[in-house]
Amino acid sequence: MRMYDLIMKKRNGGALTEKELNHLVRGYVAGEIPDYQMAAMLMAIWYRGMDDKETAALTKAMAESGDQVDLSSIPGTKVDKHSTGGVGDKTTLIVAPMAAACGVKVAKMSGRGLGHTGGTVDKLESIPGLRTAFDRQEFFDIVKKTGICLAGQSGNLAPADKKLYGLRDVTATVDSIPLIASSIMSKKLAAGSDSILLDVKTGSGAFMKTLEDAICLAEKMVAIGERAGRRTAALITNMDLPLGNGIGNSLEVIEAVDTLRGRGPEDLTEVCFHLAANMLYLADKGTLEECRQMAEEALKSGRAFEKFAAMVQAQGGDVSVIYDTNRFPKAPCSCRVCAPQKGYISHMDTEAVGTAASLLGAGRVTKDGAIDHRAGIVLEKKTGSYVEKGETVAVFYGFREELFPGARQAFLSALSFSGEKPGRSPLLYARVEKNKVEML
Amino acid sequence: MRMYDLIMKKRNGGALTEKELNHLVRGYVAGEIPDYQMAAMLMAIWYRGMDDKETAALTKAMAESGDQVDLSSIPGTKVDKHSTGGVGDKTTLIVAPMAAACGVKVAKMSGRGLGHTGGTVDKLESIPGLRTAFDRQEFFDIVKKTGICLAGQSGNLAPADKKLYGLRDVTATVDSIPLIASSIMSKKLAAGSDSILLDVKTGSGAFMKTLEDAICLAEKMVAIGERAGRRTAALITNMDLPLGNGIGNSLEVIEAVDTLRGRGPEDLTEVCFHLAANMLYLADKGTLEECRQMAEEALKSGRAFEKFAAMVQAQGGDVSVIYDTNRFPKAPCSCRVCAPQKGYISHMDTEAVGTAASLLGAGRVTKDGAIDHRAGIVLEKKTGSYVEKGETVAVFYGFREELFPGARQAFLSALSFSGEKPGRSPLLYARVEKNKVEML
Repeated sequence: MRMYDLIMKKRNGGALTEKELNHLVRGYVAGEIPDYQMAAMLMAIWYRGMDDKETAALTKAMAESGDQVDLSSIPGTKVDKHSTGGVGDKTTLIVAPMAAACGVKVAKMSGRGLGHTGGTVDKLESIPGLRTAFDRQEFFDIVKKTGICLAGQSGNLAPADKKLYGLRDVTATVDSIPLIASSIMSKKLAAGSDSILLDVKTGSGAFMKTLEDAICLAEKMVAIGERAGRRTAALITNMDLPLGNGIGNSLEVIEAVDTLRGRGPEDLTEVCFHLAANMLYLADKGTLEECRQMAEEALKSGRAFEKFAAMVQAQGGDVSVIYDTNRFPKAPCSCRVCAPQKGYISHMDTEAVGTAASLLGAGRVTKDGAIDHRAGIVLEKKTGSYVEKGETVAVFYGFREELFPGARQAFLSALSFSGEKPGRSPLLYARVEKNKVEML
Repeated sequence: MRMYDLIMKKRNGGALTEKELNHLVRGYVAGEIPDYQMAAMLMAIWYRGMDDKETAALTKAMAESGDQVDLSSIPGTKVDKHSTGGVGDKTTLIVAPMAAACGVKVAKMSGRGLGHTGGTVDKLESIPGLRTAFDRQEFFDIVKKTGICLAGQSGNLAPADKKLYGLRDVTATVDSIPLIASSIMSKKLAAGSDSILLDVKTGSGAFMKTLEDAICLAEKMVAIGERAGRRTAALITNMDLPLGNGIGNSLEVIEAVDTLRGRGPEDLTEVCFHLAANMLYLADKGTLEECRQMAEEALKSGRAFEKFAAMVQAQGGDVSVIYDTNRFPKAPCSCRVCAPQKGYISHMDTEAVGTAASLLGAGRVTKDGAIDHRAGIVLEKKTGSYVEKGETVAVFYGFREELFPGARQAFLSALSFSGEKPGRSPLLYARVEKNKVEML
């Protein structure tokens, strides 16, 4: 089998076989297939796409390129959850304990934030003492004991994805739906859960800017999961405005705690109920409606919050800050950002809002950059709100005043105003299951 | 300027500017742009193509990446001629002396054969003693003295093309019309002639299998030449059957000599008149019709043959073999290939015929392979001929009998037979000048 022939086949619109894709991935990881041939292949895939069978085979080969976590020693149904990334997206911190409180096992490995989006591991690490790096046995023990562990990625998970992603990043082949789908799902398959719930974000703060692309990506990922024998579903949710009001690591943990205690923002709470219900549904806990009731009950009863606290404790975190969020370390500086004009906020360019938070220190600009866990933005107004000129739209937090002007500029550039109240956009657009797209 | 952005621009269908293409070529030759980024770019170009302005700018940058021959010290109009490659294509050996006999200066650098097609340098080297490697001054001196020199490529001509071609060859991006056009024309521009006549072959023995592709390539190359200030024209000629009857190096020189003496096959002679007339036309020697008459007269009078003999002598070759072609070294073995059935030869897969000749030793399979100058095929029948079963179709020449069975199999597989006489296909399809395609 010659790589040249595989490039030619894909270039001309052919479908690669499982055998060919295995050869491709193994050869590339082993260094037998050079970067330049893989780069030509990636560009051909960018143009030609891949069908479900190909994408599934590619993903499987990538998942099998490194360690594969065997969660079978943990009793019960293990459900994973993945978000494609957004601004203010702290849902994992809420829905994972909700689902765990209802008997689902959540043995989840999360990533760090990059660019305008945040990452669960960064958020969790704003809790003093909390660890996210465990060896495999410790990880299993925490899940067995508390039903939940939110760890960082460890071991050699899908090294083919890492190498391929690095190449895509410098050859303008990142934004290919089959390549995105296989990248995400290879890590999910290697992470070993029985079922996978995907939260595919769409809108100005998401990687998928259009609903059409988001549904397409969701369908691809669900097909991959199902072909690999994992029950998989996806929700398409709105990231055309930030989720909740807090953006930034400790600010988001505080909002997650508020939500787990029943005092969270309406949009965030509602999205979390949907996500948690779907995780329970994927674990066969009942109909979607029954699962939704279970999730609500877990919140109302305080069991979800207690589960979160138990997890924080098991992961070595200081639980006192969870019970009293005023004890979280605070940013030394803050400033109010005021509306430059009166009117309804008709749109927030959510990627720009995320960038403003990053500029305050909440995110990292480069892969190995440091972040300030205390920094970020608390929104007082969002899309649809009416403001008078000079009224506070948001409060910025950072470790020095000098960060504010640049962040303010980025933030204000994100806002559009209108004399008329904009229509309310939905929180959720669609739900995708095997061979089924249900518009919500 | 970042290569990433250039890939993205081309990938999304944008046109690269001259500045961007200069950066691309210079950066790549300097090793600053890695192969993997160039591979992604080449694949994007394969899909998106390049407009005339882009192709011309790319070609210019490639031509300027190395030595550029300055022919201005040679008085008169220098006309180059290039064939895209075929089987039995010995036209350069005939038309270059024809044109030179009419006062055009031919200072031409030719290539070697590869795969199923032959190369002028290999053919010439079958003449005992003849040299094709000259230093620049010697090359100029021969052209000044005899009006013609057919040399091998020397110096560092278009190194960007060499490097890019090597990458295209392993990334399935060879068959892109703008890339083929820029590859050919970069060397032609660097070689320094005032005018360029292109012979674009089409059919089963050519790289351009369809007339449409051949015309498209011709238009691209003419546009490049004209944008670079060189008068350029192209003929689209038939390579759906071998040209003439001899295939193989000394066999083709013998046939070229026969043709120069007025005893050549009709098809070859006719194509040569067209090519020579167009070379004269590009040197402003008159109307196409007048130029054709001049070419015919050069042949009839024996001046074209004498010019060829003078060139052989100037290049150090043994002229006696030209005056008596029986003196050419002969292959030790030969065999007749007979028709396996009766009927009309309705088609000859000309690439397969070329491959058969290569198997006999006439061509090289790898870039640095040796060739047998005596080996090859003389066709006794061609497409359109009627044969009885067992009648001789061709004679094979080689240095040992063992080569014959494989070559025979390749040759016979190339033939199709029919009960009905096939229609005669034209020798020439079209003539392409600046902004003008004339169907012939």
